[in-house]
Amino acid sequence: MELFTYQRNRKQEVKRIMFNMMNEEGEKVSRRDIIVTAGKLAGGAVGVAAVYNLLSPLPKSEASTKMAELPWPYKKFTDKDMKEASEIAHAAWFKGFCPYATMSGIIEVLRKKVGEPYKSFPLGVVTFAHGGTSGWGATCGTLIGSGMAASLVTGPHTGEAIVNEVMHWYADTELPIYVPDHPKAVLKTKNKSETPLCHASVGKWMKKEGVGFLSAQQMERCARLSADVARKTIELLNAWSDGKFKAVNKSPVGLNEIPSQNNCTDCHGSKVPSTSGPFGTGLDLLKGGH
Amino acid sequence: MELFTYQRNRKQEVKRIMFNMMNEEGEKVSRRDIIVTAGKLAGGAVGVAAVYNLLSPLPKSEASTKMAELPWPYKKFTDKDMKEASEIAHAAWFKGFCPYATMSGIIEVLRKKVGEPYKSFPLGVVTFAHGGTSGWGATCGTLIGSGMAASLVTGPHTGEAIVNEVMHWYADTELPIYVPDHPKAVLKTKNKSETPLCHASVGKWMKKEGVGFLSAQQMERCARLSADVARKTIELLNAWSDGKFKAVNKSPVGLNEIPSQNNCTDCHGSKVPSTSGPFGTGLDLLKGGH
Repeated sequence: MELFTYQRNRKQEVKRIMFNMMNEEGEKVSRRDIIVTAGKLAGGAVGVAAVYNLLSPLPKSEASTKMAELPWPYKKFTDKDMKEASEIAHAAWFKGFCPYATMSGIIEVLRKKVGEPYKSFPLGVVTFAHGGTSGWGATCGTLIGSGMAASLVTGPHTGEAIVNEVMHWYADTELPIYVPDHPKAVLKTKNKSETPLCHASVGKWMKKEGVGFLSAQQMERCARLSADVARKTIELLNAWSDGKFKAVNKSPVGLNEIPSQNNCTDCHGSKVPSTSGPFGTGLDLLKGGH
Repeated sequence: MELFTYQRNRKQEVKRIMFNMMNEEGEKVSRRDIIVTAGKLAGGAVGVAAVYNLLSPLPKSEASTKMAELPWPYKKFTDKDMKEASEIAHAAWFKGFCPYATMSGIIEVLRKKVGEPYKSFPLGVVTFAHGGTSGWGATCGTLIGSGMAASLVTGPHTGEAIVNEVMHWYADTELPIYVPDHPKAVLKTKNKSETPLCHASVGKWMKKEGVGFLSAQQMERCARLSADVARKTIELLNAWSDGKFKAVNKSPVGLNEIPSQNNCTDCHGSKVPSTSGPFGTGLDLLKGGH
């Protein structure tokens, strides 16, 4: 087997094992299972296997309730539910900004349809993530709301796969799409962000629309975007509920050997740093294209 | 009053009102209060006040439990608790990556010290945010874990102020600092990220250390960083508990008129786009320095 392919496979296997190890509260995967699985990795992934020092204790969770376990129950959204979620998301933006808005759109409807444990979930836990986390322009807050809602419904592993699909769609789609019943401003344009970063996403849109931050148009745009992301998330949750959700896109970390976006030149210009192949040493960073 | 100062004050007032409106479940701020407060804004902030179309209904929450209300009870961490949180965070990284790790460090100790509602909180809700959200290299996952834990303990408003301080510290500090009892790799270097972005933070560190992504060293670095961020968050939560927390740093959104970092040249090089002053129109974006 070619070294590249071999190492790529190793990395995927490591990632799979890490996911299998990850069960946020319980012991669905026993330590014995992990040791056996890790044993199968011996040889090719010595350096990595050593990282999982299986003799050092994992923390024992003090969680004791069913609510702490994911996933939670789900009932498919009807078209009417979807409309309600969209309106709630749009309105909720003006109450608590983007992550709270997207999260509220999905969770408020589940509180009605399913009840607990959604009724007990503190939605305010996600508000801080607005403006790309406390106004720092990083991950668009709608995506944090999407990831949290998807994780509650499907668990951490599928939740991550769902938000990855939402992020690909977010970066590649002319947004906003949804037109609410009570718009608070008239919008002229849609825009493709090519990024999940709040800063670039809202910045590009504001430039195209010709408005500034905290303008009525920008706020309306972000409120509609919150509804859009809630809708896309619900669409994938419904597909998952039917057993039809399929992770189509690879996370950029798997493509680029480093957590990253795929629009490298947006920040790096023509000098896109090189990652040095699978399990790259990082030594080649900033040396050339990749 | 100079126009600049006047508009700056308006924006701060609008932001304050938006925060006051934001109470994720209850009606602590009545619609009447909002209308009265908004009335005080009339005149100078016509465009913005219009955004809060107070006649359109805010969504009525279906939440019905005390657990859905923030903040939750808190007991100050002792030095021993802090040590325990650090060890849990480090170990938890290898179970569920950065946001889960930072969150676990804080919440597992609160489950022991306080009990409910922390015992019922599903920690797996945050796992998706690893690698800068599903491997997209945006907000460092430790900061999402920090913001969520801080929001549970202090509520959405103070939680956001706390994570903003953590982010400033994160960007300006040589990390990682914490050395765990059972390190899984030997690390040579520390590094100042100058950014809350996973991609640049881990990328700069890997370059300095001379290692690649998914190397034992990189994983150990991110595990230690998770402990560092948990410790910094706890330090601020303890200060808050004593009534001594003070928001020292302004969020970049308030400084740069757009959600952003303060290391503009890292991505933009010498061509830092201009925001066009308070309530900037955005028309000047990409035209010059700011």
